[in-house]
Amino acid sequence: MSVLIVGSTALDSIKTPKAENPRLLGGSASHAAVAASFFSPVKLAGVVGEDFPRRYLRLYQRHGIDLDGLQVLPGKTFHWSGEYEANMNNRRTLLTELGVFENFAPTLPKSHRATPFVLLANIAPALQLHVLNQMERPQFVAADTMDLWLNIALADLLKLLKRLDAFVLNDSEAHQLTKQDNLFAALAKIHRLGPKYVIIKKGSHGSILSGPRGLFLCPAYPLRKVVDPTGAGDSFVGAMVGWLAAAKGPVDDHIRLAMVYGSVVASFCCEGFGLQRTTRIKRKQIEERAAELKDLSRF
Amino acid sequence: MSVLIVGSTALDSIKTPKAENPRLLGGSASHAAVAASFFSPVKLAGVVGEDFPRRYLRLYQRHGIDLDGLQVLPGKTFHWSGEYEANMNNRRTLLTELGVFENFAPTLPKSHRATPFVLLANIAPALQLHVLNQMERPQFVAADTMDLWLNIALADLLKLLKRLDAFVLNDSEAHQLTKQDNLFAALAKIHRLGPKYVIIKKGSHGSILSGPRGLFLCPAYPLRKVVDPTGAGDSFVGAMVGWLAAAKGPVDDHIRLAMVYGSVVASFCCEGFGLQRTTRIKRKQIEERAAELKDLSRF
Repeated sequence: MSVLIVGSTALDSIKTPKAENPRLLGGSASHAAVAASFFSPVKLAGVVGEDFPRRYLRLYQRHGIDLDGLQVLPGKTFHWSGEYEANMNNRRTLLTELGVFENFAPTLPKSHRATPFVLLANIAPALQLHVLNQMERPQFVAADTMDLWLNIALADLLKLLKRLDAFVLNDSEAHQLTKQDNLFAALAKIHRLGPKYVIIKKGSHGSILSGPRGLFLCPAYPLRKVVDPTGAGDSFVGAMVGWLAAAKGPVDDHIRLAMVYGSVVASFCCEGFGLQRTTRIKRKQIEERAAELKDLSRF
Repeated sequence: MSVLIVGSTALDSIKTPKAENPRLLGGSASHAAVAASFFSPVKLAGVVGEDFPRRYLRLYQRHGIDLDGLQVLPGKTFHWSGEYEANMNNRRTLLTELGVFENFAPTLPKSHRATPFVLLANIAPALQLHVLNQMERPQFVAADTMDLWLNIALADLLKLLKRLDAFVLNDSEAHQLTKQDNLFAALAKIHRLGPKYVIIKKGSHGSILSGPRGLFLCPAYPLRKVVDPTGAGDSFVGAMVGWLAAAKGPVDDHIRLAMVYGSVVASFCCEGFGLQRTTRIKRKQIEERAAELKDLSRF
């Protein structure tokens, strides 16, 4: 089945101690859509400016991503610039130019409204709600978020949580949302806010699922070298929902493996700047890492 | 087979935001010995003062721990006092009174010198070497350490590393020792210092083994409530070596499961102050958590 993905479509200028890469294709929806495309057909909803490079449109197209929901508006594409420290964990934002994203309020094409799987990748929760309101009885709705929205749009986020099947956030956001230091206690509190599945991303420490069948401790694929972690979380959730949309039968039967595939695609994402490595993944390589991860965590 | 464990035997006064517990039985060797005792016979080498409570000697004895190598000297028992923050991860030392530990240089009883499994729990690397020098061709030698020794006794530690089968340290110590931000790159560097097996403890994020058969990503048992993490790392390594000593055949065949059992016993340790919870574990409860951990990480 197909997946509708809404989120940011941006140009990212990324500095690390070793390199500088201006105006890469980035944004939560770009990473999530490419990651999901390895498993299921993807429809992208987003907005870019007239400066958006044509080669990036072709990149989406090479991944079979339906661009009917990608608006091109007069003005500039959302541009984010950030810098990572040597440990690749701490980053700081150098610049945020919203451009056409400032007034983004997508109207979905009719053809998109009945898409069975919906991924509300990281954007303002009001926009996530705006898109969700246009969907016709989706089968499975997942959303990602970031600390910014907990700080400035908590009321919207709480509204959104009531309408999700799955909510994905990272460990520090889980602490922030629940005021709970213990992650497992935090999970219980987040369920009470609505979502049936809560998934906590812990970067290189893996991820945790809490759902109707209890907990799952998902390992991260071990990487000896991280080039650029930007978009790894978006890739994780994109691949996860893409995998779920491709699987037959109840979500509960597949969600563990969906997270493992999310973990694998996220690992490739970290091995290149922006989408440079992700776009070159072969399906066989994904399967190899998934099998390797199984072997690395077997006992 | 039996395990010789040397390390600190101390009285710990532990403050957390919720409680204060003076003069609990503590020390790396106490935690490691009790943890190992669930799987194999244990011989303890350590030193205490005349103030060491008799009930703590009886506690060791109830766990079948051979105390022939525990010296009781005139003076005071090593006393450590520390305070945890609300998140139970950060702690600070309030007081360290070395007492009789200051001049500790154990001479092992003859009966201890041919013990096949040796665990050099966390103490000064010079003392770990001093004990190892008295052993007659041990089959398997593991050592734990702490950041203090990396700071003040690195030369001794590097000498020790050449003589170990397994070296256990936590993630921040691995970074400190190798100047490597990436843990998997750090592992490769630590192998070059000597040990065949390197095990990195990551607290609630689990642990990582690097050995002749590659990597193993070991999960931590999920705890909703951590009462006191003091001694969890010592319990992990104690249970691990205790399990290995009980297993038949090559270490490579058993070390993954040994780490899982280490993880389980460490989880119990965190559920009470000092050794209060650990000493009440039933073997059946260990097996239940090990089975649960298998289920929680299966995919």
